[in-house]
Amino acid sequence: MNQLKRDRQFRPLPVPSVELQGLFGDRQDAICDSTAETLLDRCVEAGMLQAIDVTQPSPGVVIPIGPWGGTTQMFWDSDLGKSIETVAYSLYRRSNPQLEARVDEIIDMYEKLQDKDGYLNAWFQRVQPDRRWTNLRDHHELYCAGHLIEGAVAYYQATGKKKLLDIMSRYADYLITVFGHGPGQIPGYCGHEEVELALVKLARVTGEKKYLDLSKFFIDERGTEPHFFTDEAARDGRSAADFHQKTYEYGQAHLPVREQKKVVGHAVRAMYLYAGMADIATEYNDDTLTAALETLWDDLTTKQMYVTGGIGPAASNEGFTDYYDLPNESAYAETCASVGLVFWANRMLGRGPNRRYADIMEQALYNGAMAGLSLDGTRFFYENPLESAGKHHRWIWHHCPCCPPNIARLLASVGSYMYAIAEDEIAVHLYGESKARFDLAGAKVELSQQTRYPWDGAIHFDLTLDRPALFALSLRIPEWAEGATLSVNGEKLDLQSAVVDGYARIERDWKSGDKVDLSIPLTARKLFANPLVRQDAGRTALMRGPLVYCVEETDNGEGLNGITLSADVSQAKISEIAGLRGAVALDLPVSRDTADWGASLYRTSPPAAKQANARFVPYPFWDNREPGEMLVWVRAGEARGE
Amino acid sequence: MNQLKRDRQFRPLPVPSVELQGLFGDRQDAICDSTAETLLDRCVEAGMLQAIDVTQPSPGVVIPIGPWGGTTQMFWDSDLGKSIETVAYSLYRRSNPQLEARVDEIIDMYEKLQDKDGYLNAWFQRVQPDRRWTNLRDHHELYCAGHLIEGAVAYYQATGKKKLLDIMSRYADYLITVFGHGPGQIPGYCGHEEVELALVKLARVTGEKKYLDLSKFFIDERGTEPHFFTDEAARDGRSAADFHQKTYEYGQAHLPVREQKKVVGHAVRAMYLYAGMADIATEYNDDTLTAALETLWDDLTTKQMYVTGGIGPAASNEGFTDYYDLPNESAYAETCASVGLVFWANRMLGRGPNRRYADIMEQALYNGAMAGLSLDGTRFFYENPLESAGKHHRWIWHHCPCCPPNIARLLASVGSYMYAIAEDEIAVHLYGESKARFDLAGAKVELSQQTRYPWDGAIHFDLTLDRPALFALSLRIPEWAEGATLSVNGEKLDLQSAVVDGYARIERDWKSGDKVDLSIPLTARKLFANPLVRQDAGRTALMRGPLVYCVEETDNGEGLNGITLSADVSQAKISEIAGLRGAVALDLPVSRDTADWGASLYRTSPPAAKQANARFVPYPFWDNREPGEMLVWVRAGEARGE
Repeated sequence: MNQLKRDRQFRPLPVPSVELQGLFGDRQDAICDSTAETLLDRCVEAGMLQAIDVTQPSPGVVIPIGPWGGTTQMFWDSDLGKSIETVAYSLYRRSNPQLEARVDEIIDMYEKLQDKDGYLNAWFQRVQPDRRWTNLRDHHELYCAGHLIEGAVAYYQATGKKKLLDIMSRYADYLITVFGHGPGQIPGYCGHEEVELALVKLARVTGEKKYLDLSKFFIDERGTEPHFFTDEAARDGRSAADFHQKTYEYGQAHLPVREQKKVVGHAVRAMYLYAGMADIATEYNDDTLTAALETLWDDLTTKQMYVTGGIGPAASNEGFTDYYDLPNESAYAETCASVGLVFWANRMLGRGPNRRYADIMEQALYNGAMAGLSLDGTRFFYENPLESAGKHHRWIWHHCPCCPPNIARLLASVGSYMYAIAEDEIAVHLYGESKARFDLAGAKVELSQQTRYPWDGAIHFDLTLDRPALFALSLRIPEWAEGATLSVNGEKLDLQSAVVDGYARIERDWKSGDKVDLSIPLTARKLFANPLVRQDAGRTALMRGPLVYCVEETDNGEGLNGITLSADVSQAKISEIAGLRGAVALDLPVSRDTADWGASLYRTSPPAAKQANARFVPYPFWDNREPGEMLVWVRAGEARGE
Repeated sequence: MNQLKRDRQFRPLPVPSVELQGLFGDRQDAICDSTAETLLDRCVEAGMLQAIDVTQPSPGVVIPIGPWGGTTQMFWDSDLGKSIETVAYSLYRRSNPQLEARVDEIIDMYEKLQDKDGYLNAWFQRVQPDRRWTNLRDHHELYCAGHLIEGAVAYYQATGKKKLLDIMSRYADYLITVFGHGPGQIPGYCGHEEVELALVKLARVTGEKKYLDLSKFFIDERGTEPHFFTDEAARDGRSAADFHQKTYEYGQAHLPVREQKKVVGHAVRAMYLYAGMADIATEYNDDTLTAALETLWDDLTTKQMYVTGGIGPAASNEGFTDYYDLPNESAYAETCASVGLVFWANRMLGRGPNRRYADIMEQALYNGAMAGLSLDGTRFFYENPLESAGKHHRWIWHHCPCCPPNIARLLASVGSYMYAIAEDEIAVHLYGESKARFDLAGAKVELSQQTRYPWDGAIHFDLTLDRPALFALSLRIPEWAEGATLSVNGEKLDLQSAVVDGYARIERDWKSGDKVDLSIPLTARKLFANPLVRQDAGRTALMRGPLVYCVEETDNGEGLNGITLSADVSQAKISEIAGLRGAVALDLPVSRDTADWGASLYRTSPPAAKQANARFVPYPFWDNREPGEMLVWVRAGEARGE
């Protein structure tokens, strides 16, 4: 055993190498059926094609466009980029020539739009051509480039068509000439991080290290003194103090990134930055970046994260506030922020499997992120509160449509988050019915995962190899999975000794026909929040496996805050919910405040309580039936007989 | 007994007829010591005197002014009017020639500013002279007139100086020519109610019924169709739909006032309207108005009022949202709104004493309103949340400085809210150490009230009369006052039979030397909220007498949501709090979540609890010591042995 070196560079399995069924397969079908086309339709309705089409007049600044209350925006390109990326992933799963033709048309427009020098940005070519590179702090200029790069990489991998990848490579080559410390170069970086992680994707698909170097440049420069944003404002004749959020913390540019200890500012920006940093840490084996990221990871996950993996409680800065400030009803917890947390967590696995990251990746993916898309794939949450008085529902679209394509591209590519590959190791980070193909250790390996996870914890793997091969198969044992068992070809392994960093690492000569059985007991469990989270005091949240549960009015009637849960939840009655794609409901005895209170608002005697049954359903599936109240943190009664 | 007719027109005793000691006297001393002068200083710093001074250049539109972040505002006159009113009341209590001279100077400026036709409005004379009477809906034009009228009445009563009263009478005479259904007249009313109640004050001090008639016109016209605001917008070339709140409910102009059943919109506007309606109901014995007001009263107090008497939970409209939506930490509950509720409640007593209104008047006065002024009279709350994580503190000033002079003028004139007089009846609505002088039933009556209320419930009255007289003395018995006793000259009365509408009505031939003793047991009591108030579910608030209690970090350390109160609060230990002017603290055994939780944010076992003592202090006095957390609704444990 342990003959192999522990290779510490893991990369996500490319999306086309994974076929999904089960829950994730169902989500991808919804995207193929509806979301992918919806995204393109809405982009058209919002005037984005007019914006990039050089044969049409410029759309102008700040005019209302489209039926969704949108206005012309500096970040059109990002919406188109993420939409292209989503369509690309959907094409992996299901061919759709019509959709593909629509994307080709958009790409042709971008080809015509691109400047001779390689520059490409709809806003700064079509609306404010004199403002190119004048305000990196506020204008999302490189952010747009990043999303188009991600779209280009995905579309090339999906279709083999290289046009957009070439366009974006030309643009990236131009960026390399523009940014740096040389004469006439800009020693800056974007206020909204994104291009950093995109350049890593471009480098990996093209094999060009120069793109990694540019990404590393942006990361290394961020927050250094003299401060680029301050100098830039002075050059542009602006007051450096007079801007939207009035603090460089908003874009994590208040300190050099390696000196940052606290997760601050705009949540999506923070996640994209940390994701890019983690990629660079992996690619350069940069321990200083990894050390900074570990500190930031703990800061986020032990002081600033909702139990759903939602992050960024405040609307005012779309981001972080104080430690332990996690209001439930007014939670912003933007879908994009949880998507970004999945990005970051996944990239923290680049230096080796570790459930410290993968458990949170799963929690954020299943709850804070996945909630963002309706079951039918047509509607989207922007905010993800943990309590609703009945008025919070998914949008058809949003005036700032960042979230719809973001959750769509994540779910459409989720296979690459499930499996990672190193030189001699396969890591299974997430479970779900699927087939994955790997090239490693000189063999072609197919790993077939048969399971009803997350509804049931029995997971069976069949391995098919074109020849026997020595490698490690690492399977995540979630921290919450008490009593998990593992066997290879029917022989039970001692999990205690097999587990490294929360992964059961099975290193052996694998051959075709090998079977692995993993059993993860999915016992419902109560969660309690640290007493410093004032909003959850005296309350409890229910989880089963990776899923957070909630109560909805459609099952339980109104007045959900009248519910008190004292029962031993491991005894919950389990059943499948009609109309929720086989999702598992948990039924439990509770006490409820009676409503026979009369006309008074306050009185000296407490409400009477009655015994009742309450149905808990998976949080990400809420608001897919009758609209109404929803609550995650129910009142906790004292345990009786537990 | 019951020889007297029950006169149903009660009017507040004029401010100069009451001398206060005790808690209210202390508040008035703080206003005389600090607040009155502070208000004038801040008005000067905010550029208001430049605004009204015709010898200086116009201040212009929307330029930042002063060190308090103020901008030029359409409602300068209202701030000056309320400040003059406050100074006037302070002069009743304590002569201050220097302060009086400053007000005289302001009045001289207004005299010079007034147009020949009587019009007077700093904004529309100095900044936008072409916009007079073009947008009553949004521009606070009559609102400003109202506050200057109130200031003029108070200043005349305080000093005998008539100049401002004459100025405002001329303006009101001009308004009578401007508004009406005659040719060339405007059939409208102000978007922000206020002038209605001010005109009643002007009528009462001048004896001129024409001002009542104008007030009644504004009230009767409000919300009728064809809608004035819609027609006005069309005349002015504006889209009627395109305005701040996009609903006439914002200013209670969505329906004729007699058809309004639900309290909606901007809370201060609503209270000022209802106060004006109640005055008109009293003056005209208008039962249709009273009936509408009774419906609105119930709507507010049984579905939309914080236990503090705070109202209007939302910042977005500074007003009302849904029934039973009473968030604690984000409560807007503007000081002005509770002040307005006191105004309305007091005027509901115009048709006879009734504790239905007086109990709420007391609750709002002592809690939601009085909290607005720091104990030293120098700082002000705008919002009054019922929970703070430690960052909510009183302001030195506010960019919209409506609240400081509003709470100051209320407290400075609170004697007139304590006592009301009818032809043959004195009503004592509120208790507190004081002397009040009445002319009624042909006699001069001095009522001396000796009490430590609200800290102690023993209340002793001495009556001094220049000749014996037959009248009724009505003393409020609060609904919460279980076990109250009453005696006249040592002889105990049967309260059951003496109480009418919650007032013990003692009708007799009173003579000098008569004594009345009222005992109101001030036993601490727990309040519970209707289960439909989701934010208070599982929680309890403590009251003693009219005061709501809270816990503060300075007494109890941090983590106030970790406190669970199960104890029998009637057994609370009572003591005086050093540094809080003799306020009574309540000490109680509680259980508290222990903080030894380690680094995790969520875990499967609940926090351990420990027994502890918690100190509860009066809510209106919070944030007068060390800054920190505050909480009104603590978690309620199950009663043990109660």
